[in-house]
Amino acid sequence: MKDIQAKVTLVGAGPGDPDLISLKGIKAIEQADVILYDALVNESLLNYAPAHCTKIYVGKRAERLSTSQDSINQLLVDYALTHGHVVRLKGGDPFVFGRGGEEIDYVRQYNIPTAVIPGISSSVGLTGLQQIPLTYRGISESFWVITGSTSDGRLSNDLYQAVQTQATVVVLMGFGKLREIVDLYQNYGKGDLPIAIIQNGSLANERVVLGRIDSILQEAERSLVGVPAIIVLGEVVAKHEQFEALTAELATLSKS
Amino acid sequence: MKDIQAKVTLVGAGPGDPDLISLKGIKAIEQADVILYDALVNESLLNYAPAHCTKIYVGKRAERLSTSQDSINQLLVDYALTHGHVVRLKGGDPFVFGRGGEEIDYVRQYNIPTAVIPGISSSVGLTGLQQIPLTYRGISESFWVITGSTSDGRLSNDLYQAVQTQATVVVLMGFGKLREIVDLYQNYGKGDLPIAIIQNGSLANERVVLGRIDSILQEAERSLVGVPAIIVLGEVVAKHEQFEALTAELATLSKS
Repeated sequence: MKDIQAKVTLVGAGPGDPDLISLKGIKAIEQADVILYDALVNESLLNYAPAHCTKIYVGKRAERLSTSQDSINQLLVDYALTHGHVVRLKGGDPFVFGRGGEEIDYVRQYNIPTAVIPGISSSVGLTGLQQIPLTYRGISESFWVITGSTSDGRLSNDLYQAVQTQATVVVLMGFGKLREIVDLYQNYGKGDLPIAIIQNGSLANERVVLGRIDSILQEAERSLVGVPAIIVLGEVVAKHEQFEALTAELATLSKS
Repeated sequence: MKDIQAKVTLVGAGPGDPDLISLKGIKAIEQADVILYDALVNESLLNYAPAHCTKIYVGKRAERLSTSQDSINQLLVDYALTHGHVVRLKGGDPFVFGRGGEEIDYVRQYNIPTAVIPGISSSVGLTGLQQIPLTYRGISESFWVITGSTSDGRLSNDLYQAVQTQATVVVLMGFGKLREIVDLYQNYGKGDLPIAIIQNGSLANERVVLGRIDSILQEAERSLVGVPAIIVLGEVVAKHEQFEALTAELATLSKS
C-alpha cells in the first residue's frame, strides 16, 4: 500500500485565461493526486494534472449551490487522507471572496499540512488587461475590493463607506446589484463618475461596458452584458483607451 | 534592415518568487526585443528572454531615483521605435502603485500599441502565501490596498478613512510610516487590532512579524524587520497559523 502524504494546497487559477495562472500554480497541479475545482476555473488547466489524478467539479453558480461549502471542506479532508495531495483550484485568488480561509481552517483541524499559492485576482487582472489602472498618481492612491454578494444578500456596508472616498472601487459578484450601486452613487452626487463593467474578462467572449453612473444602466441593457462580471468605479476608468469615444457615442444616442 | 514592429507590453512580475509570474508573462518575455526592469523584479526572470534581447535596469530604490519616471517613459518609446517589442517588467502588478498608467499614457501619444499582462500584486500574493485570508465570511467583506508612499510624502488621506472601516487594509511601501500608522489606529481605539509586517515576501529571506497595533513597534524592532515590506491590518491577520503562539510569547516577554 502506498504511503499517503496528506496535504491540501489552495491554488488561485487566475481570472479566466489559462495563461494567467502562475508557474507555481501549474507545478502544484502537476503534483496533484486529486483536484477539486470551481465553476470559474478554466478546465484546460486540468491538462497539467498527472494521469492518475482524480478531478472533481465542485462549482457553484450564482445562487444555486451545486456542492455546499461544508461538503467541499469535508471532501478536502477525506481526499487528502485517502489520496494524498489535494489541489483546491479556485478562480482568481483563493482568499479573495473564495471562502479559502474557511477551507484552510477546516483542514487544519485534522493536522493536515496546508499551503496557498496565490492567483491573479480578477479585481486586479481584468482591469489591467483592459488597461484601466487601479491606481494613478494624482487620481487614485488606493483601490478597494468589495463583494457584491454578502452572506445575507444585502449590499455590503463597506460600499456605503467606499462611495464617500477617493479610492478606486472594484465590486466582485455584484452585477445583480448594479441598480442599487447606481442609486447609492447617485445619492452621493457621483452620477458623473466613470464606471466599467467587465464580463467574462480575459476570455474570448469578454465584453466591456464603459459609461458614467448616470448612464450605465441604459448602457448595460443596450450591450446585453451579464454575469459573471466585475464592476469598476472611479476616475481611473476614464483612462480606458475607448472611454472618450464610447461616452461621446452614448451622448449622441441619448440626444437622437 | 529589419522591419520594426513597435510595441510596449507592461508585465507584472509578481511579488518576488520567480515562479509567481504568470505563464502569459513568461511568453511575453520570450518575445521581447528589449526589457526594462525594476529593482523588485527577480532577475532570474530575464533568463526567459531570447538571446538578442537587450536588458536594462531602471530600478528605483526607496527615495533615491536611479532612473527618473520621465526617462523611463522616453526609453520605452525610443526602444520600441528602434528595437520593436519592449517588455516593461514591473514588480507585483503594473497598475498597483507602479506608475504603469503614466507609462501607458506616454507611449500611446506616439501611437505605439500597448498591452498589459497583470501580475500577482504583493498585497494579495504575500498575504496569501502567509495564509492570511484578505476576506473571510463574517470577518471581512472587503480589502483596501493603499500606498504608504504618496507623491508629497504625507500619509494617504485614504488611510484616515480606512481606519474607520471594517475592511482589511494592506499598505504597500509604508514601512517607513509604521509609527504614524500605529498612532492613527490607536487614536481610533484600535490598539488591539491584529497587524502583520511581511518583509521580502515569497523569497528565501522572507521575514514575518505578527502582533497587535499596541505591540507592533516593539515587535518590529525586536525582529529587525525592514524594507521592502507590506503591512496588513485587520482581524483576518489573527487567522495566521502562528498568530496565537507568537502573541502569547510576546505577552510573556512584556511581563518578564
